[in-house]
Amino acid sequence: MKVAIIYAHPEQRSLNGSLLKFMVERLERAGHAVQVSNLYAMNWKVALDTGDFPNRPPELQFDPMGESRQALQDGVQSPDIAAEQEKLLWADAVILQFPLWWFSMPAILKGWVERVYAYGFAYGRGEHSDRHWGDRYGQGLMAGKRAMLVVTAGGWATHYEPRGVNGPIEDLLFPIHHGILYYPGFQVLPPFVTYRIGRGQVDETKYSKIVEDLGKRIDDLWTTKPIPFRPQNAGDYEIPALTLRDELAPGEAGLAVHVNMADTSGG
Amino acid sequence: MKVAIIYAHPEQRSLNGSLLKFMVERLERAGHAVQVSNLYAMNWKVALDTGDFPNRPPELQFDPMGESRQALQDGVQSPDIAAEQEKLLWADAVILQFPLWWFSMPAILKGWVERVYAYGFAYGRGEHSDRHWGDRYGQGLMAGKRAMLVVTAGGWATHYEPRGVNGPIEDLLFPIHHGILYYPGFQVLPPFVTYRIGRGQVDETKYSKIVEDLGKRIDDLWTTKPIPFRPQNAGDYEIPALTLRDELAPGEAGLAVHVNMADTSGG
Repeated sequence: MKVAIIYAHPEQRSLNGSLLKFMVERLERAGHAVQVSNLYAMNWKVALDTGDFPNRPPELQFDPMGESRQALQDGVQSPDIAAEQEKLLWADAVILQFPLWWFSMPAILKGWVERVYAYGFAYGRGEHSDRHWGDRYGQGLMAGKRAMLVVTAGGWATHYEPRGVNGPIEDLLFPIHHGILYYPGFQVLPPFVTYRIGRGQVDETKYSKIVEDLGKRIDDLWTTKPIPFRPQNAGDYEIPALTLRDELAPGEAGLAVHVNMADTSGG
Repeated sequence: MKVAIIYAHPEQRSLNGSLLKFMVERLERAGHAVQVSNLYAMNWKVALDTGDFPNRPPELQFDPMGESRQALQDGVQSPDIAAEQEKLLWADAVILQFPLWWFSMPAILKGWVERVYAYGFAYGRGEHSDRHWGDRYGQGLMAGKRAMLVVTAGGWATHYEPRGVNGPIEDLLFPIHHGILYYPGFQVLPPFVTYRIGRGQVDETKYSKIVEDLGKRIDDLWTTKPIPFRPQNAGDYEIPALTLRDELAPGEAGLAVHVNMADTSGG
């Protein structure tokens, strides 16, 4: 199988750097093909701006959505953007690896999403009618592919528990899992999160345990049950309001209602 | 009073550009002093990296936390970072204005947070003991200041309702409200969010309504009741586990438990 790893840490001689190397070796030893986008090492251009569209008339009012659609259609996207889209189309599974900075992905990775996720590629696909509201949330160009986050956090695991002060980790990651990965069609696996990784806090014993656990997740990449997010266009939501139908998770609200706890199909 | 607006939209001739101009005029007419950080126009450096620390030995393993602490202590921070910190210290209220891109802030603004929020400035302050776990979540250098998000979203309001497919807007914004603003001590006001702002969807009537509503929020900046997040070190959380005490919101979990619904003190 083919795996793309998008890696966003500024220092290769770090825990994240070691885990990246470990994953690549583990995957290649199992016969998989791997491509890594090492965003810092590539000096990835972060901000989505007019510089992404070299053919645009400079006096035109900048329309990120319309211009990204046009550039994709015309085949005149910035080469760094097109190359990343090719990796996503090539891959059977995509891993986003990053340190949790301020409870989200680092800016350099967010900028990768904003620039690579062009209109017509990751959004703005499919009809919008009273029966279907775009090919998204379970449908889209990434349908059939798997995605997983590999994340390190400085705080303690208890701080990210269901009643922990930072908020539950699954809720903090929801905008990424659901809004960035499930949106264009990925099946999203439960994340691999390592806590309390500050300097001096990861000794040899702890590191061995981390790679043992991560190794299992890598081995099980093709069999792990995805998070059973609810597809948007299959009947669970009113269209076009896109609110969950009253009879599903009745009386409940919040992020958790978008996970179908009754789904035991294996995704 | 003094207001800093951190603005992250690439095009000034946009709805966001108009709303920025409107807010500045409204505030100045009321006698307030305003400073705007127009991140795209400033060509803000986005990625936190070794380039932020010109005095560092190049062969050293990069430690973002330790190096930002040292640079702050020694007064040798990158001048663009120090200038933004000065604005935050100067301001009585801070407004972050941005379009919601992929359910979060644009990368350029996330990079502003990562670089300006140095160790010792926005985190890593105060003692860590079994009674106090750092000056954070209600304490910190920004205590006594107010903060508010001004956000535009392409989707419909119903898509962001409590049972909307995108997730409730307050949950999507929690990592910013709680994790980025409340963390260093800001009192966080309810956000001002405008929906369905795509091209051709904001006519004169809708625009008039938007600025009328925004005008009220600007006029009420000093009197609006903040979101009553629970302070970390005042008894609501076990320390150092930092889980909410069993008798508070008993049996509940998720992001909402960190808002004290019983707090009617006005913040």
